[in-house]
Amino acid sequence: MEHNIRTVREQEFVRITHIIRKTVQNRNIKDGIAVIFVPHTTAGVTINESSDSNVIIDILNSLNKNFPVRGDYFHLEGNSHAHIKASLIGPSVSIIIEKGRLKLGTWQEVYFCEFDGPRNRKIFIKLIEE
Amino acid sequence: MEHNIRTVREQEFVRITHIIRKTVQNRNIKDGIAVIFVPHTTAGVTINESSDSNVIIDILNSLNKNFPVRGDYFHLEGNSHAHIKASLIGPSVSIIIEKGRLKLGTWQEVYFCEFDGPRNRKIFIKLIEE
Amino acid sequence: MEHNIRTVREQEFVRITHIIRKTVQNRNIKDGIAVIFVPHTTAGVTINESSDSNVIIDILNSLNKNFPVRGDYFHLEGNSHAHIKASLIGPSVSIIIEKGRLKLGTWQEVYFCEFDGPRNRKIFIKLIEE
Repeated sequence: MEHNIRTVREQEFVRITHIIRKTVQNRNIKDGIAVIFVPHTTAGVTINESSDSNVIIDILNSLNKNFPVRGDYFHLEGNSHAHIKASLIGPSVSIIIEKGRLKLGTWQEVYFCEFDGPRNRKIFIKLIEE
Repeated sequence: MEHNIRTVREQEFVRITHIIRKTVQNRNIKDGIAVIFVPHTTAGVTINESSDSNVIIDILNSLNKNFPVRGDYFHLEGNSHAHIKASLIGPSVSIIIEKGRLKLGTWQEVYFCEFDGPRNRKIFIKLIEE
Repeated sequence: MEHNIRTVREQEFVRITHIIRKTVQNRNIKDGIAVIFVPHTTAGVTINESSDSNVIIDILNSLNKNFPVRGDYFHLEGNSHAHIKASLIGPSVSIIIEKGRLKLGTWQEVYFCEFDGPRNRKIFIKLIEE
């Protein structure tokens, strides 16, 4: 399954848990895993705090401190920092499904991580039954 | 399957390979994958050196140098550094099962990564047959 | 499935997409996932830019700036930096297979990430059908 994501800022984390939940419900899978895959090289997928949005700001600031937007890079497009962040955050996560539900922790939200926006993006979701 | 982990320090890597191995043996799965998932936002899961425990100390020190415990963070709980580390290390790993055994490298150990302890924690394990 | 990788430099990213593609074709799997696993503690696997090789140079330089080869490390083998990078990049990725094809983005290439070479290395691949 493919789903479109429209990012609106240069760097931001977009909530996607509801999209994955809906996919699990529609397919009526009881037990298995959901693989979330980001088909881009300047974006990633992670799971983090759902409640205080300052956490996400702190994560982005901290990444930018260590992997600055403007740096001594060879790649001429000016987005090397975004490629680095994408590989550190990673292109895929696997989430467990049990009794028809995504088995996430209380404070967990799945985020699409935009590091070189705004852009039209995609996520791929594959459900595997146990 | 859920398993409880009791961490005893603020930051530490706890060995969990034996827990995953036991789960694979109990379920008698011959070929497939084991998905390990951490349902927390200030902890993660990784695979690294099983032998010299100094490697883990070096990893934690190095993470703390780049993502310091006390920093210029907006999130008021004082654990933003732990949220950042959790997303860099990641919430899930997938390990291959072959002939009823976890297919790890000679020096590999699976670690639960505590970045904001000590706490009572959990890991989720899902086995998928080929 | 196991596949040998011969790295020739101390640090480098080796293209492995063609190996995974061949494995998918040979097994004739229509829909599912491919789990790629690196059984080493100073190497990892990531997905990033296929086209401009400067991107990979920028990623390696940037990692070396933040996690220097020579540092204040306890582990006496001199490769702590490589262990740190291995855990940040990660030991496994899962890629979706649809209609018999690896479902990657236009610019994506799967890379074996050598951080302590040159060495003889391995990757494990497991295909799971939907």
